[in-house]
Amino acid sequence: MPPTNRSRRIFLAPAPRAVSDIFDESDLIRLRAVGDLVVHEGGPITDQLFEATAADAEIIIGQFDLPESRLRQATSLRAVFNVEGNFLPNVDYSYCFRAGIRVLNISPVFAEPVAEAALGMAIDLARGIKRSDRHFRQGTEEYGLAANREAFSLFHQDVGLIGLGDLGKAILPLLRPFGCRIRAYDPWLPDEYVRALGCEAAPLDEVLRRSRLVFVVAGVTAENQGFLGAQQFASMQRGSAIVLVSRAAVVDFDAMLDFADKGHIRFATDVFPEEPLSSVHRARRTNNSVLCAHQAGALQSAIKQIGKMVAADAELIMRGLPPVLCKPAQPETVGMLRSKPVSKT
Amino acid sequence: MPPTNRSRRIFLAPAPRAVSDIFDESDLIRLRAVGDLVVHEGGPITDQLFEATAADAEIIIGQFDLPESRLRQATSLRAVFNVEGNFLPNVDYSYCFRAGIRVLNISPVFAEPVAEAALGMAIDLARGIKRSDRHFRQGTEEYGLAANREAFSLFHQDVGLIGLGDLGKAILPLLRPFGCRIRAYDPWLPDEYVRALGCEAAPLDEVLRRSRLVFVVAGVTAENQGFLGAQQFASMQRGSAIVLVSRAAVVDFDAMLDFADKGHIRFATDVFPEEPLSSVHRARRTNNSVLCAHQAGALQSAIKQIGKMVAADAELIMRGLPPVLCKPAQPETVGMLRSKPVSKT
Amino acid sequence: MPPTNRSRRIFLAPAPRAVSDIFDESDLIRLRAVGDLVVHEGGPITDQLFEATAADAEIIIGQFDLPESRLRQATSLRAVFNVEGNFLPNVDYSYCFRAGIRVLNISPVFAEPVAEAALGMAIDLARGIKRSDRHFRQGTEEYGLAANREAFSLFHQDVGLIGLGDLGKAILPLLRPFGCRIRAYDPWLPDEYVRALGCEAAPLDEVLRRSRLVFVVAGVTAENQGFLGAQQFASMQRGSAIVLVSRAAVVDFDAMLDFADKGHIRFATDVFPEEPLSSVHRARRTNNSVLCAHQAGALQSAIKQIGKMVAADAELIMRGLPPVLCKPAQPETVGMLRSKPVSKT
Amino acid sequence: MPPTNRSRRIFLAPAPRAVSDIFDESDLIRLRAVGDLVVHEGGPITDQLFEATAADAEIIIGQFDLPESRLRQATSLRAVFNVEGNFLPNVDYSYCFRAGIRVLNISPVFAEPVAEAALGMAIDLARGIKRSDRHFRQGTEEYGLAANREAFSLFHQDVGLIGLGDLGKAILPLLRPFGCRIRAYDPWLPDEYVRALGCEAAPLDEVLRRSRLVFVVAGVTAENQGFLGAQQFASMQRGSAIVLVSRAAVVDFDAMLDFADKGHIRFATDVFPEEPLSSVHRARRTNNSVLCAHQAGALQSAIKQIGKMVAADAELIMRGLPPVLCKPAQPETVGMLRSKPVSKT
Repeated sequence: MPPTNRSRRIFLAPAPRAVSDIFDESDLIRLRAVGDLVVHEGGPITDQLFEATAADAEIIIGQFDLPESRLRQATSLRAVFNVEGNFLPNVDYSYCFRAGIRVLNISPVFAEPVAEAALGMAIDLARGIKRSDRHFRQGTEEYGLAANREAFSLFHQDVGLIGLGDLGKAILPLLRPFGCRIRAYDPWLPDEYVRALGCEAAPLDEVLRRSRLVFVVAGVTAENQGFLGAQQFASMQRGSAIVLVSRAAVVDFDAMLDFADKGHIRFATDVFPEEPLSSVHRARRTNNSVLCAHQAGALQSAIKQIGKMVAADAELIMRGLPPVLCKPAQPETVGMLRSKPVSKT
Repeated sequence: MPPTNRSRRIFLAPAPRAVSDIFDESDLIRLRAVGDLVVHEGGPITDQLFEATAADAEIIIGQFDLPESRLRQATSLRAVFNVEGNFLPNVDYSYCFRAGIRVLNISPVFAEPVAEAALGMAIDLARGIKRSDRHFRQGTEEYGLAANREAFSLFHQDVGLIGLGDLGKAILPLLRPFGCRIRAYDPWLPDEYVRALGCEAAPLDEVLRRSRLVFVVAGVTAENQGFLGAQQFASMQRGSAIVLVSRAAVVDFDAMLDFADKGHIRFATDVFPEEPLSSVHRARRTNNSVLCAHQAGALQSAIKQIGKMVAADAELIMRGLPPVLCKPAQPETVGMLRSKPVSKT
Repeated sequence: MPPTNRSRRIFLAPAPRAVSDIFDESDLIRLRAVGDLVVHEGGPITDQLFEATAADAEIIIGQFDLPESRLRQATSLRAVFNVEGNFLPNVDYSYCFRAGIRVLNISPVFAEPVAEAALGMAIDLARGIKRSDRHFRQGTEEYGLAANREAFSLFHQDVGLIGLGDLGKAILPLLRPFGCRIRAYDPWLPDEYVRALGCEAAPLDEVLRRSRLVFVVAGVTAENQGFLGAQQFASMQRGSAIVLVSRAAVVDFDAMLDFADKGHIRFATDVFPEEPLSSVHRARRTNNSVLCAHQAGALQSAIKQIGKMVAADAELIMRGLPPVLCKPAQPETVGMLRSKPVSKT
Repeated sequence: MPPTNRSRRIFLAPAPRAVSDIFDESDLIRLRAVGDLVVHEGGPITDQLFEATAADAEIIIGQFDLPESRLRQATSLRAVFNVEGNFLPNVDYSYCFRAGIRVLNISPVFAEPVAEAALGMAIDLARGIKRSDRHFRQGTEEYGLAANREAFSLFHQDVGLIGLGDLGKAILPLLRPFGCRIRAYDPWLPDEYVRALGCEAAPLDEVLRRSRLVFVVAGVTAENQGFLGAQQFASMQRGSAIVLVSRAAVVDFDAMLDFADKGHIRFATDVFPEEPLSSVHRARRTNNSVLCAHQAGALQSAIKQIGKMVAADAELIMRGLPPVLCKPAQPETVGMLRSKPVSKT
């Protein structure tokens, strides 16, 4: 029914991502099959442009500004897709909730790749893979048991999860074959929920004290910035390991470096307080650490899922059904999130 | 019944391992509960010593020489436990098979730690963890997608297993959550067996050609030394990865270094043609490689399992039951194995 | 802060369920800890009663009428919990969505017990358990292979799921160890979603034609009543099996009986077009069928979860966080659902 | 190399099974590819026939008598396959062990179908499926909670396994998604082994006392006949359930009927003290029981696996490799087994 579709607009302006990075031809065909697709890549969305091309859209894909003034014009709007991966303050969320407009993001595409990288970083810390490689390059390696003096295994280990959102939940199946005892701390989740996932719900201090390996996978909120600091690192067992793959702002980064340098903990991180990191930042010289360059999620294969996920949910929305793949903003929490946009990751 | 036990001897001479490395007090108590335990740690087992203390044993624990001449004297002998982890030519196996003497080794304790390390090495190669860390140390890191130009994910990946013995089988559960398509080559196993483990049985060339990631977990036999050489590496896809954790002798090591240096493949290895590796060996300077110092199995926590495994099987044997934890020598294959003893790993 | 809680009301009127059936003392203590709990069990909620005790509640637990007139008075209302298990037309849902009031039900407590019963019914049909028992009672049993002439195994079987909501998803983990090939049909879900659950997305006719065993777990909507009829049963393979555990209205029940009586299919059902079933209903005499009395979900142990689930989500809501255990009504679909209330199950 | 194969004989005389029941054409082709296949189906194996056709075989498939006198003639013999499923006293096992002749049976083909049936029987007992069906036929059904007064769920249940051989191990993966706490009793297995399978090792009385559901999967030995009797049933919790799928001789059958009739336990059994069961046996009238006619293993699809399993292991044996699919007789235990041959199951 082309006449019908022609009158049902989908507005796609995914900057700073390029359309071709996230949508392949088959994805665009799916969008065109359910709507009149208008693509904008040329520059900012001015009010004039918005009125002319986006105001009558049923679906908007992009992270440009949508204040109340624009949303009031968008009387057909059913859904807004953020294709970066965070809920940013670019949208008047309360207007959307009142008006029944779904606000969605594509962060679920990153959960599996980040979980995989987190597991790799964890095994590296536990088993000393990178360290052994460095010793070989320097000619200082020791073999067998001697190489393993500080090593530990994940099998049957006490593991902690700080945060049990999409990312924490994606780590769980990867840990399952190791038979770990997993304690999880997430102040937004009831114990029943945590236990149903096969974890023990525990307060933060117990997670830190009891775990040999801690995955920090909590998002940043208005309330939790720097909540892992010197006191928390001090409470951890000597020789325990931290894997940080959510946002650097949840830890006191300097304190983490201090505790690694003096050998109390070891850590692996994919995120930093500033990216790119200053060329003279002390983190570059820290011992007992594995440094990754915000690469845990940004895999080509994950980015390619974005268009498919958006197309599938857009199809549902245009049929009057609820989206099921993208992450919907929750009225209670969307205002608490504080992730900085990280360009294109 | 102390009188009974006193007359049923267990002879323990685990050199080159120390008794205290592999048996804790509770393990020794279990042995003493089922037999008259004689421990020898002071030096070689001379014929005189053998006659005096081991010849009437029902169970011998150790890897000293047991030629026919000694076995003939050992008329009560039911089982010999090798506590290093390989079946070596120190025992007259055919005599043992004819006489109904079980020959066992404790290699199963190493399967899980080696599988864990292999997975960590695989994720490192796939996701570029060590490489990224090195770039940070040198100040040359790139972020996000740029860091991932050559990265791939294990999720839904084509993975190959060369060898599907205890070690290969220990890797399978760790891969399961990644939803890989796994092709396995093992000339000692029928397709039915391979499929029952959730793999596709495939010839070697297909495993090499189709897999993005290959685990080499085949033991060395009289027939397969160096069977992975230049031709095999050339047949692999550019950018694919090899994880070698069994024995270096199954690959042409120089050819593997060549193909890594020119960027055709990347590899991680835990084993080397000579250990310790010569301080000037070119492997130390190879690109696209992760080098580990025969540390995949030799974890303290694994070593500590040896005594428990031996004690449990010794209890069964003394009760007239078959052992179930240690690996029994098979008459058909024990003569084909060619693993060098690797001291204490 | 008792003064605070005293001013934040929770109104609990769970008829036709009794408070004590679904809340034990510890659940009520949790509710009282976050609000001023008012319980009403004595009779209908008149407007006068509503105004006096429920109108200022932040949380209402129960399935009494909440038309716009009442909701307008409930200016503090944040959430309504239906503790029966369906979304019924007792609530003005659009008012709630506009006003940011969560409407929730406790149907997730039934997913596991229903999935368990469904698996039991499936194995019974496949393996002829009930039939064999009946033969023993009549003295007409045959043994071994002869007893299994029409039997089949679930292992590696072609299985179909019609509906992939909470119930279908609860069946999947129970089927996983059987290594089935699972085709799923759910018109509300995109293929990407179905595949991510380990199923093949397939059209209804393919699911019916290819599956030896079909689980019907679709809810009733305005559009799908009786969508499984004579034509659909005829398209199934002779000897295939149907397990019906959602709602009888999705099938043409008489046609299902016809096809079972003539031996084309066999079926097990937990639901009937009328309950209790007429004492002379032909279903009571149907061959090739297993009849269960709407007992798949209504286990004491599941009912006891209701209070815990409500208390946990109520705690979150009173803290300003989103509920995570109960099922939230979706604006797009809540108006399409047509489940009849089934008293107390 | 036909000349070679021609001189390497495989003798196939599978009575009481028919060749065509267990070998399809592709299986026979595999056997012929590795040996000179001689098939005998016409009657008993006389000494004369043995000498003429079987004495020079490398592989014998069948369960006819192989006393020392015959084995002495069979100087090329490497393996004997019992294709019924039990180790019977038809073979001089000690001769075989001394001579390095593998004795194997095909019982592993039955493990999965029996485990499936056992799970179905367990859910039936727990959830009252058959009972509810019977009530419907009699017009006495009750609905919902009323139907479930004595029902329980397997989810998170205390479950016991008596015996943890192939059959017990095949049940474990089917139970895993239910999150049960599983206690296992097997006097032939050390605690380490039981725990590695995810169970708790427990003495028999604890398994009986603590479990709501008990799977009896122990084989019959010289020592354990009738070891589950009145005292054991009395120690079980009222309302608990027994699933018996190994051999009837391990229980005192009359005691089990007594305890079911008085409502203390419920049970499901696939095996009986005599088969066929006397037409007036009281078991036919027992309450609280589900009776199956030795049909748990004897599925057509399982029987068809026998030939494939034998062909695959025969190929290995002819190549000088150890068999890996069939179950090898163990010198320590083969003499203790007391299973009666059950014709063709």
